[in-house]
Amino acid sequence: MAIQHPGKITFVLGGARSGKSRFAEGLAEEAGLQKHYVATGEAWDDEMRQRIVQHRQQRGEGWVTHEVPLELSAALATIAAPDRVVLVDCLTLWITNLMMAERALDDEMRRMVASLAALPGPVIFVSNEVGLGIVPENSMARAFRDHAGRLHQQLAAVADTVFFIAAGLPLKMK
Amino acid sequence: MAIQHPGKITFVLGGARSGKSRFAEGLAEEAGLQKHYVATGEAWDDEMRQRIVQHRQQRGEGWVTHEVPLELSAALATIAAPDRVVLVDCLTLWITNLMMAERALDDEMRRMVASLAALPGPVIFVSNEVGLGIVPENSMARAFRDHAGRLHQQLAAVADTVFFIAAGLPLKMK
Amino acid sequence: MAIQHPGKITFVLGGARSGKSRFAEGLAEEAGLQKHYVATGEAWDDEMRQRIVQHRQQRGEGWVTHEVPLELSAALATIAAPDRVVLVDCLTLWITNLMMAERALDDEMRRMVASLAALPGPVIFVSNEVGLGIVPENSMARAFRDHAGRLHQQLAAVADTVFFIAAGLPLKMK
Repeated sequence: MAIQHPGKITFVLGGARSGKSRFAEGLAEEAGLQKHYVATGEAWDDEMRQRIVQHRQQRGEGWVTHEVPLELSAALATIAAPDRVVLVDCLTLWITNLMMAERALDDEMRRMVASLAALPGPVIFVSNEVGLGIVPENSMARAFRDHAGRLHQQLAAVADTVFFIAAGLPLKMK
Repeated sequence: MAIQHPGKITFVLGGARSGKSRFAEGLAEEAGLQKHYVATGEAWDDEMRQRIVQHRQQRGEGWVTHEVPLELSAALATIAAPDRVVLVDCLTLWITNLMMAERALDDEMRRMVASLAALPGPVIFVSNEVGLGIVPENSMARAFRDHAGRLHQQLAAVADTVFFIAAGLPLKMK
Repeated sequence: MAIQHPGKITFVLGGARSGKSRFAEGLAEEAGLQKHYVATGEAWDDEMRQRIVQHRQQRGEGWVTHEVPLELSAALATIAAPDRVVLVDCLTLWITNLMMAERALDDEMRRMVASLAALPGPVIFVSNEVGLGIVPENSMARAFRDHAGRLHQQLAAVADTVFFIAAGLPLKMK
């Protein structure tokens, strides 16, 4: 399957360790623009710190990195530009951060998605599909899964291109 | 991707908050027939009650609703008709209800699937894919997952059309 | 969707009870070669013993079975041949066994994947996608999920054909 040049908004959805970040990085490389990485993850613990280091090593050189745990709409408005490609990795960590900060998630998610139409340059979003297992017993996990599912639907509706990734292979859904 | 007019039996499979119900409702609208909704869910608790209300609001006007927690084959034989489209939402809740009622699930599922060939009108089934996460530690959850997977295979084998939904987008599998 | 004759390395990925083993067995039947089954599962408990018996009954006659909990590269080098088709079911159980035996998983997985290019006959691998649910609370489960995801990416990269199975239906990803 030929990977097309990303449209304005690209959404890369996949499971844990599905190769979604690597695939999204490949799309960003192909764009031939200045590469900006928006990291939503925060290093809470050693496991997370290690994952962040691994991601950074995998990405390699040539990225400008921005740490944006919460204010994603504002950050994208500042960072996006016609000569840049912005990679946001990942939306499920952004949701986690919003929940931890007790923000009004429905509003924040809607606002972020609504802001995309006005951006002057391409953005690639990466997110984890988390809704294909058994219903979690933990109510926070259920709420998280609901938020993630809603955001994915909203984003996919406005995205120009949507990929589902499994075993490192892309499936073009839109 | 153009959504085709539903065949006699349509199966819409997807994760939690994947937009599968909304997609199935759209298929039902397109059919241009009298719309009948078979709700398998029962309001055990507040969370479930809230979900049922949300689903009802999302569906909008113009549906005849039937509450069918257990006797799905019998209900479909009564409800299905050439001038009606029947939407069953969802099969995983039906499985939960059968397990709670200690029914013989393999028999009930086989009987329901076998009954479909004789129905005089189109039916759209919605179900949750729950088998793509880690093996659950809880043995009831493992049994549930096994039943769901078996029913999905049986139904997909006889269905005219099968969609897998992720982020609100359909992938036609059959 | 027409199922093509398997290439040298075929990878069948799917959820629990998705029909992935049955689909892989069908591919092996179509190959028209002597059928060899490499079972990675060990009968730890009654549930596992029952699953092994069910799988054996489903497969039917005509298979030579090899029990290979750990030494998969070595076994494939011995078993694979131009007049045989080898079915390995499944890789997630192999990963579990490697973890239980405290092996160096990254090395073992890389070595196994690297050994495939030299095999003289076709091999079909079956594995469980486990990364599409909520992040497991258990750190062993998270490690397992990471190993599985990494192996799936490595195997898909070298495989000639990759199928994703849901509800018994194949989706050709490569």
